Amino acid sequence: MEVVWWEAQDGRPAAVGYVDQRRLPHESVHARAETVDEIVATIAGLGVRGAPAIGIFGAYGVALARSLHAEADAFASAADRIRAARPTAVNLAWAVDRVLAAGPEGLLAEALAIHAEQRAVDRAIGEHGAELMPAAGAVLTHCNTGALATAGSGTALGVIVAAYERGRKLHVFVDETRPLLQGARLTTYELARSGVPATLIADGAAAATMRAENVRVAIVGADRIATNGDTANKIGTFGVAIAAAHLGIPFYVAAPRSTIDFALRDGDGIHIEERAAAEVRAFGGIATAPADMPVYNPAFDVTPGRLIAGIITEYGVARPPYDESLPDLATRPALGLLLGRA
Amino acid sequence: MEVVWWEAQDGRPAAVGYVDQRRLPHESVHARAETVDEIVATIAGLGVRGAPAIGIFGAYGVALARSLHAEADAFASAADRIRAARPTAVNLAWAVDRVLAAGPEGLLAEALAIHAEQRAVDRAIGEHGAELMPAAGAVLTHCNTGALATAGSGTALGVIVAAYERGRKLHVFVDETRPLLQGARLTTYELARSGVPATLIADGAAAATMRAENVRVAIVGADRIATNGDTANKIGTFGVAIAAAHLGIPFYVAAPRSTIDFALRDGDGIHIEERAAAEVRAFGGIATAPADMPVYNPAFDVTPGRLIAGIITEYGVARPPYDESLPDLATRPALGLLLGRA
Repeated sequence: MEVVWWEAQDGRPAAVGYVDQRRLPHESVHARAETVDEIVATIAGLGVRGAPAIGIFGAYGVALARSLHAEADAFASAADRIRAARPTAVNLAWAVDRVLAAGPEGLLAEALAIHAEQRAVDRAIGEHGAELMPAAGAVLTHCNTGALATAGSGTALGVIVAAYERGRKLHVFVDETRPLLQGARLTTYELARSGVPATLIADGAAAATMRAENVRVAIVGADRIATNGDTANKIGTFGVAIAAAHLGIPFYVAAPRSTIDFALRDGDGIHIEERAAAEVRAFGGIATAPADMPVYNPAFDVTPGRLIAGIITEYGVARPPYDESLPDLATRPALGLLLGRA
Repeated sequence: MEVVWWEAQDGRPAAVGYVDQRRLPHESVHARAETVDEIVATIAGLGVRGAPAIGIFGAYGVALARSLHAEADAFASAADRIRAARPTAVNLAWAVDRVLAAGPEGLLAEALAIHAEQRAVDRAIGEHGAELMPAAGAVLTHCNTGALATAGSGTALGVIVAAYERGRKLHVFVDETRPLLQGARLTTYELARSGVPATLIADGAAAATMRAENVRVAIVGADRIATNGDTANKIGTFGVAIAAAHLGIPFYVAAPRSTIDFALRDGDGIHIEERAAAEVRAFGGIATAPADMPVYNPAFDVTPGRLIAGIITEYGVARPPYDESLPDLATRPALGLLLGRA
């Protein structure tokens, strides 16, 4: 599935195309951002989400901006606006700066290279992770970690799809992932497109489902990983990991090396973003709790490395003890180099 | 808080009053069922919910039916319709049959007695359980187990409120309890009325909250308890119990003796009701997943007795090993007898 793409017309830049994630799963709309305003609004409004996907969309956006704004100041201002469209998404600023560094004539080539590298990293994660999936049986995942999140083939969901395509007879249980329901809205959609049999569950049903449905493996993505394996990921991950450990089910994390914070010794140093109370007090504009009810809404939680059976990166599967296996990855050549690029 | 009550006018039966739970937490409506049709529609439509509360409402409904239908066949038919308003709620059939057995002149007195016994049982559970709450600190609960569920003072939530009223400085974290959101809609409302400080969380945040907010105790209700302590309760309970065990937090169950199935040796024999897929595929009336997405929606899960630190009944706190402490309760005199009634 293409999530973000470059569109040219008669050999000239025309637009950055994208699947509008606000309208999934009910409609799969191929939308086009044709101006810098539209690029910025699409990022800010979550038309494209997932840190890697935002970075790639922003990189193409800078290439588009160049064709619209030949004058240097106007172009620089446009790039600044794209970079700031979601200030907390570090991949966005990184990708914008990387294409700018390629110089005026190299913008599109660099954006295409970033996208190609993401695809290569995701593909490698999928190949390594597929080996860990059962020949047949149920797996459980949380949140959305597919193509929609990375604009490649995804991380944890990419592993599941890769294993299925290699003949593993998997059935996927998908946590709906409150409060923002990325599992219900996006993961279900991606699995249906890939043809992988799947069943949606409420988050609270995860432990009972793992036991009753004989789940063989649980696998999730990551937002940040410390060198001892402590992993920050979408809220709810920690509970899934504890339940998996209790039931003797291997719990895996799939993420690119760029997710590992080699300066971080353990998860205590990970700042957990708290999001708006309205996400928990309501849904779709309909209140589900008293309007003045206090809410605790952490966006992420930290799963201790000791609950994680393996961390799947583009280099293979890191195993405990992570404070030996993870730092070892820091000095490996980037997969971009393996593709013949700096 | 009165949830269900008998209304007379000029000494004659007039209605069965109730707080309409469909309109909580946004409106607290004191509604009146004045006909058998209204009694049946209120039960079937979840205006009154919670097995004990339904039983008490149905018992009053039979007394009301007697004043409206003097002819024996018409009255018997009315009682049958009330009994069948929710066929799976065993308390309803039990309560209807018990008031009928009291004879035509004893209907209202028996309904009032059932209600008084529920209040006494709940009060005893609250008193015993309050001793287990910390002098100060956070507690976590799941689903709704308060007055709204029992028409008394509740079970697990009754324990929390009783402890708070006795000076324990508690702060309650409330799981929203997808899919039907009894925590978000009802428990928040009851805690606000009782003045107990409380915070709403998504179900997936329970494990992270227990760790980050230093939760001291988790406490829930029960739908059915086997003699080894295995406990069926609202879906999500098992995950909370596993997380509590992992974090070294005592996990308690509060329920009347009538919840214990003395014929059941362990939880393997408990049939788990599956509910409609639509409950998980939508949220607040708005679709959140593809319309044809398969769903697994068990209403309950079974928590192994070995994860439960104590089971609080009207007779005190049963401790492990439950296959010794629970069967012992079977022969204790009913609290109704303690109140001077058969």
